[in-house]
Amino acid sequence: MQTEPTLATAEDGRVATPACDALIERYARIHRLAHLGAIAGWDQAALMPPKGNEARAAALAELAGLLHRMATDRALGDEIERAADEPLDALQRANLREMRHAWLRETALPATLVERQRLAASRCEHAWRRQRPANDWAGFLENFRPVLALAREEASRLAERTGLARYDALMDRYEPGMTSAVVDRLFGDIRHWLPALIREVVDRQAARDAADPPADAAGPFPVERQRALCEQLMRRLGFDFEAGRLDVSAHPFCGGVPEDVRLTTRFAPEDFLGALMGTVHETGHARYEQSLPRAWLGQPIGQARSMAIHESQSLAFEMQLGGHPGFAALLAPLLREAFGDQPAFDPVRLHRRLTRVQRGLIRVDADEVTYPAHIVLRYEIERALIEGEAQAEDIPALWDAKMDELLGLDTRGNYRDGPLQDVHWPEGLFGYFPCYTLGAMYAAQWFAAIRRTLPDLDARIGRGDLAPVFDWLREQIWSQGSRWSTDELTRRASGEPLNPAHLRAHLRQRYLG
Amino acid sequence: MQTEPTLATAEDGRVATPACDALIERYARIHRLAHLGAIAGWDQAALMPPKGNEARAAALAELAGLLHRMATDRALGDEIERAADEPLDALQRANLREMRHAWLRETALPATLVERQRLAASRCEHAWRRQRPANDWAGFLENFRPVLALAREEASRLAERTGLARYDALMDRYEPGMTSAVVDRLFGDIRHWLPALIREVVDRQAARDAADPPADAAGPFPVERQRALCEQLMRRLGFDFEAGRLDVSAHPFCGGVPEDVRLTTRFAPEDFLGALMGTVHETGHARYEQSLPRAWLGQPIGQARSMAIHESQSLAFEMQLGGHPGFAALLAPLLREAFGDQPAFDPVRLHRRLTRVQRGLIRVDADEVTYPAHIVLRYEIERALIEGEAQAEDIPALWDAKMDELLGLDTRGNYRDGPLQDVHWPEGLFGYFPCYTLGAMYAAQWFAAIRRTLPDLDARIGRGDLAPVFDWLREQIWSQGSRWSTDELTRRASGEPLNPAHLRAHLRQRYLG
Repeated sequence: MQTEPTLATAEDGRVATPACDALIERYARIHRLAHLGAIAGWDQAALMPPKGNEARAAALAELAGLLHRMATDRALGDEIERAADEPLDALQRANLREMRHAWLRETALPATLVERQRLAASRCEHAWRRQRPANDWAGFLENFRPVLALAREEASRLAERTGLARYDALMDRYEPGMTSAVVDRLFGDIRHWLPALIREVVDRQAARDAADPPADAAGPFPVERQRALCEQLMRRLGFDFEAGRLDVSAHPFCGGVPEDVRLTTRFAPEDFLGALMGTVHETGHARYEQSLPRAWLGQPIGQARSMAIHESQSLAFEMQLGGHPGFAALLAPLLREAFGDQPAFDPVRLHRRLTRVQRGLIRVDADEVTYPAHIVLRYEIERALIEGEAQAEDIPALWDAKMDELLGLDTRGNYRDGPLQDVHWPEGLFGYFPCYTLGAMYAAQWFAAIRRTLPDLDARIGRGDLAPVFDWLREQIWSQGSRWSTDELTRRASGEPLNPAHLRAHLRQRYLG
Repeated sequence: MQTEPTLATAEDGRVATPACDALIERYARIHRLAHLGAIAGWDQAALMPPKGNEARAAALAELAGLLHRMATDRALGDEIERAADEPLDALQRANLREMRHAWLRETALPATLVERQRLAASRCEHAWRRQRPANDWAGFLENFRPVLALAREEASRLAERTGLARYDALMDRYEPGMTSAVVDRLFGDIRHWLPALIREVVDRQAARDAADPPADAAGPFPVERQRALCEQLMRRLGFDFEAGRLDVSAHPFCGGVPEDVRLTTRFAPEDFLGALMGTVHETGHARYEQSLPRAWLGQPIGQARSMAIHESQSLAFEMQLGGHPGFAALLAPLLREAFGDQPAFDPVRLHRRLTRVQRGLIRVDADEVTYPAHIVLRYEIERALIEGEAQAEDIPALWDAKMDELLGLDTRGNYRDGPLQDVHWPEGLFGYFPCYTLGAMYAAQWFAAIRRTLPDLDARIGRGDLAPVFDWLREQIWSQGSRWSTDELTRRASGEPLNPAHLRAHLRQRYLG
């Protein structure tokens, strides 16, 4: 006769974990409904005619509310508590870790705050579209103050809930586990060496250009040929057109769902490089999504790890590969085929064009050398804004000073190409900017790790053989989903925690080597 | 001191109807979520790459389940009961009538039956795609038997719930208020005069063709020019491209939502008429949707009235207008511009082409004279199947006999172009077929009504002036949504109930006049 307590076992002999099983099914339902929002959101940006917008926005808001209610259901919280006492295996524990993190965040904010934020951001972003071209900082400030005030309230509530610092609690949405203490150290390091590196690279390129003037390709570049070229290159980069599409939107992005990735770009007939390299960037995001572990899709561990890791994939494609001499060699014949034989399509000249470094005012136009300066500036300002150390009206003076320190550019009075240039702040998205440069650091670290295991990597890329890169990324990053914390993923993949020395070494090697 | 009971009034002085208001808000939520399903469903047919299908199907099934749970919520049923005792105005009463109808149907079927039907239909339809080209009736029968058995079970349950006959209870989903007693009378009438009319028209056209052989247009017809032509014609027909799109799918349809109508067609380079007239047909559906009353969208009365009324719009465009001499005159210059000057594009020849009558095996290729024969045949068979008067294995013999009676065609052994040609039965959609010919009857009745108010209608259409038609349809049909029952809508619009004499008169006038 059995009197001792014993582990409950399911009929198939597996140890029974009913609460965890119920949680997995809950998340699968959320995942299936979120699929519809992802497709409808992509459609809104890429295809939807203008009169559809009001109904679409209402439909997406209804779904967002529904998903929030599902994710904050009291019963879900109880199941998380009960699952913690169940005999879970390692994957179940990883799922539970991700669920607890999401639950903590989702339940921290009252629905009224979320709704007030949505309205304030919508008003601010809508007016910003006209205020930016009009250089209207004063007008922007009026709508931006409530956005900032609500973001601070959100940060306070999340901080209280999570025990994190306020800015860290916002950043945690995009980059769980990252703290401003770490970012301060990493970006402080960049501040230390970047301005001198930029000067050195710019001077060297100027000298080279004086001796051997660069040749620009002659347009126009018909949009249909650009589109065919982009699709051809996406195929070379491993994008699966059976599981995704390329379309056009005003702001390029990678949307859709892992089983059906919707990538967008935008074409200008007078320039092909913008659409092409934008597409390479988005293809990096897309391959991560297309290669997430199929068996775990719909579970928390089936999602991409974080936004910095996501950016590390797009930058691995756009910068690490795109600035490699082997990429120019691979691209040159495709360009000749699309736009005719031109001196600018000589692989060596093309590589010079793809690695041209220029100080500029606009972040999204920046090369990989000057880009971190734009991010360090934004991080320092937005952290101070959220922590209450700076106010909205202080932004222009901070911007001007930091642009001068980091890039030596005078931005006084030019709000349009200054603090009004990005959509992030009007939309109340604080804490995202660091991910871009963290992503660049991770990407450099991945390539350093690949080179250690494959010393002839550069020769292989030079021959147009990109398979070793994709194989490594698939095995170490893509297939891992959110199985590990970002720090553990990084250590497992590269043998060390995030190490900013790799980005610096990469830039010195590529631009001064 | 107030002791008498009194009507509760809302603060704004309006009579309070809290249960009805709550119902309206419930339906608005359902409507907003259904929007996402409509767009994702359109995307699935028009754009989605193949590997996205499994996840998309799961997402749409999850939404369907959710919408079913929302529509069958016990609380909704209670609110319907309570609202019936509230002091409702006429529009609220109309909404309540539609809600009660939906509630009755939605709650009649157990979720397990709906799920078994979905699986059986999915299996049958999937196999049918291979079985149809293989002419494999025996293989089809195996999967079709369970589909039919489940449809009979559905019909029995709905009949029990609604008090309707079993077949009528299925037809009621598409054409509320219509009964097989009425259809028997209407279609019996058609059976009486149609075969002789077809013979007479075919003989007359053969004589004319012998005297003056028809000229066919010379292809190929490049797909991009066909697309531009279709869009041009859609604009002439009043389609609003700010509130909709034209795309391509294997089976043309009109999807999306009223604010953003997604119309599809398919192009074949060797024939332009198929895509063109298919587009005209779908544009009729589209204008109905685009012109539904904006103020009522999201309420039951904001929806299109019924499927026969919907088909009456597509057939008003494709047949009533498309077969009019004025349409050929309007189309001719567009065709010359697209495909060069050809004898076939002479308006008189073009009109002959657009009104060519041919007995054929395939319903979707049929002209407006022979089409009703295909529908009468299907209606008689499917009614007998659902009422248990015929079995699945009886279909071929019934089909052969009726094709001989109605069209004089021998179909023995040709299942591919016989009972296997339509997707409706494999998908378990019984009760829809009558709507096509009911729609043709309604369309003829609308045009007869317009002619009564506007005796020079044909002269105006002859001059390319379609505005009187659109104005009448907007005022009488489109703007009315589901405000009235189909019968009342018909009487209000045309001064009489559905009268099949108009279709016969139309066909005699156009083809023998």
